[in-house]
Amino acid sequence: MKESISHCFETLKEKSPLVQSITNFVVMNNTANALLSLGASPIMAHAKSEVLDMVGIVNALVINIGTLDEYWVESMLLAAQRANDLGKPWVLDPVGAGATPYRNETIGKLLALKPSVIRGNASEILSLAQVNIKSRGVDSIHDSGEAVQAAINLSKEVGCIVCVSGAKDFIVGGERVVSLDNGHPMMAKVTGMGCTASAIVGAFSGVEKDLFLATTAAMAVLGVAGEIAAEKSDGPGTLQLHLYDTLYNLTSGELMKRMKVEF
Amino acid sequence: MKESISHCFETLKEKSPLVQSITNFVVMNNTANALLSLGASPIMAHAKSEVLDMVGIVNALVINIGTLDEYWVESMLLAAQRANDLGKPWVLDPVGAGATPYRNETIGKLLALKPSVIRGNASEILSLAQVNIKSRGVDSIHDSGEAVQAAINLSKEVGCIVCVSGAKDFIVGGERVVSLDNGHPMMAKVTGMGCTASAIVGAFSGVEKDLFLATTAAMAVLGVAGEIAAEKSDGPGTLQLHLYDTLYNLTSGELMKRMKVEF
Amino acid sequence: MKESISHCFETLKEKSPLVQSITNFVVMNNTANALLSLGASPIMAHAKSEVLDMVGIVNALVINIGTLDEYWVESMLLAAQRANDLGKPWVLDPVGAGATPYRNETIGKLLALKPSVIRGNASEILSLAQVNIKSRGVDSIHDSGEAVQAAINLSKEVGCIVCVSGAKDFIVGGERVVSLDNGHPMMAKVTGMGCTASAIVGAFSGVEKDLFLATTAAMAVLGVAGEIAAEKSDGPGTLQLHLYDTLYNLTSGELMKRMKVEF
Repeated sequence: MKESISHCFETLKEKSPLVQSITNFVVMNNTANALLSLGASPIMAHAKSEVLDMVGIVNALVINIGTLDEYWVESMLLAAQRANDLGKPWVLDPVGAGATPYRNETIGKLLALKPSVIRGNASEILSLAQVNIKSRGVDSIHDSGEAVQAAINLSKEVGCIVCVSGAKDFIVGGERVVSLDNGHPMMAKVTGMGCTASAIVGAFSGVEKDLFLATTAAMAVLGVAGEIAAEKSDGPGTLQLHLYDTLYNLTSGELMKRMKVEF
Repeated sequence: MKESISHCFETLKEKSPLVQSITNFVVMNNTANALLSLGASPIMAHAKSEVLDMVGIVNALVINIGTLDEYWVESMLLAAQRANDLGKPWVLDPVGAGATPYRNETIGKLLALKPSVIRGNASEILSLAQVNIKSRGVDSIHDSGEAVQAAINLSKEVGCIVCVSGAKDFIVGGERVVSLDNGHPMMAKVTGMGCTASAIVGAFSGVEKDLFLATTAAMAVLGVAGEIAAEKSDGPGTLQLHLYDTLYNLTSGELMKRMKVEF
Repeated sequence: MKESISHCFETLKEKSPLVQSITNFVVMNNTANALLSLGASPIMAHAKSEVLDMVGIVNALVINIGTLDEYWVESMLLAAQRANDLGKPWVLDPVGAGATPYRNETIGKLLALKPSVIRGNASEILSLAQVNIKSRGVDSIHDSGEAVQAAINLSKEVGCIVCVSGAKDFIVGGERVVSLDNGHPMMAKVTGMGCTASAIVGAFSGVEKDLFLATTAAMAVLGVAGEIAAEKSDGPGTLQLHLYDTLYNLTSGELMKRMKVEF
């Protein structure tokens, strides 16, 4: 699988996929910079007046509910439906799932449109697995490993790839489970690192039809880049920058050497 | 007081308070990163559909009117009222007070809901002290020292803690005044440094019931961290990052040693 | 011309113009930081309830349609009209021109209000030149040189300065054309570098009535600063910071020495 991941990474650099994000205000700058550094092209566009047209010209769509409101949710639903109509992949990042009834209700509507990939932390994935059944939230903090069974259930129910990110990342496609053991604990102290992961999953989904592979490749690249960046950093501030530098300079050789992937 | 501040700082790191910000688009990323680096947990949420629920689960609320509009002001008012109903502290950052009648009118409504703490620069605090009487603005630039009397009046009138930040920071609770003499002039060249101060005041308010102490501790931590960060920086760009690194690495010993506090 | 540019730069540092941006969510932080580092004062304000008043107190206005929606477009039109009424310069950054019919329609309305300066990349300027005739978009990628004729046409038609930025920057005022050959390719890998250029054009327009000179000065300063910053950077992450540091530390001597300007 390492070779396929490395191949995906090279393809992304070559094709520079156009990735539309309807995402939160906190991370727009970060995720745009991460995509550019990686070699993808970011577009942020959420107006109801153009969202259908925009989905028409991009390679993948990322929907992140971090700072959702009524207008933005309408745009998200329009865009997701449009991506489905056009057979384009879309990634759901259910930020803060379980925190409020409104988030859960919104997630329910988005899940009904069957995202291609869902990426969240353990608490979010645990919450989603339940949302899908009884619309209630979870606010506890969990290890990614605790959410693997929930991810398997969710993956089967929705018919999509599910990624649980954390100290270890798990990528789940039905019964198939891959784990990645890269990254660095300090990454959790940079805002929007999860959102960046979702944006990168979007980028890989725009160039690789096998979304299990695309998602694994995305998480591997971010984990390896984060690890390299953390080694040069004195704290979360410098880590954020070094991450962009590393994504920009990362070679497939270094990726192969560092990547810790396990079935 | 130094010992109490240091104790507050340790408590914050231990309890990791959840801080909701309804803040401006310019600084969302900065303030989230500052809170994370410090050891707090940021949440940005403004939807009218969830704002009441969100205030219910957080330890403190920060309202910053920087890029206000009609929708966001409604959310701010809902959230502030809710915080009052639940007895939770909320911090008002009256960005640009006095610049336009709309800002002054909005500030008037927020002041009527009696914020727990107000943090602004000298011009903003001078403007507020007047807003409260006759709804007119001030656009001149003032030293923080010039606004101390206005802060005392405002503190008594609203019944809250008032912090005037600047080259020196003044924290006012009725007749009690503390000044802090840390920080660095280059901090004024990084956007949202004041907004970051307000966010950190929110974090400390979430763990310390004595809000005069909480506000002083917040400003001391930011001043000391900014000072250390500036020593390593070649300009405002690197200062912003080193600030996060410093907040992440700051020990209470270093805080105690550097802090210049005066009654 | 080098002397006039250098003089402009000194004037900007001395006068610290107040620049209002109605801009996109992705770059608000960047552009505010760039303006502060340079010595200007940024204000971001978009509320329909205050936009007329805000334009009244600033030295220049920048309108950037990056993350436009129906509300923001109304504010942009109100603000642009107001700037015209008050005889204040306003800069249009037509981000993503040609990408969707909604963008083109919005650009048409803004062009009808006759911006003082338009700054875009080659594809955007090519698209605008056509929008102005038949409301159609362009999505191909072009070199800045390819858009010079379109810029001349657009400049004459709208009666404004047009800047095409790219590897070379071209500033066009009717038949007058200046080119600048500074900058660094890695600048394209930092999100919002074009938006930052537009913000800096706004700042110079706020202190220099000759807008051809103001625009040239702005692009020269950004090009030189970007070049210096890139020399110290390992990638786009560190470049972004070093750019602010360089804008903060840049002297007119260094600007004169590095600037490559040609008629």
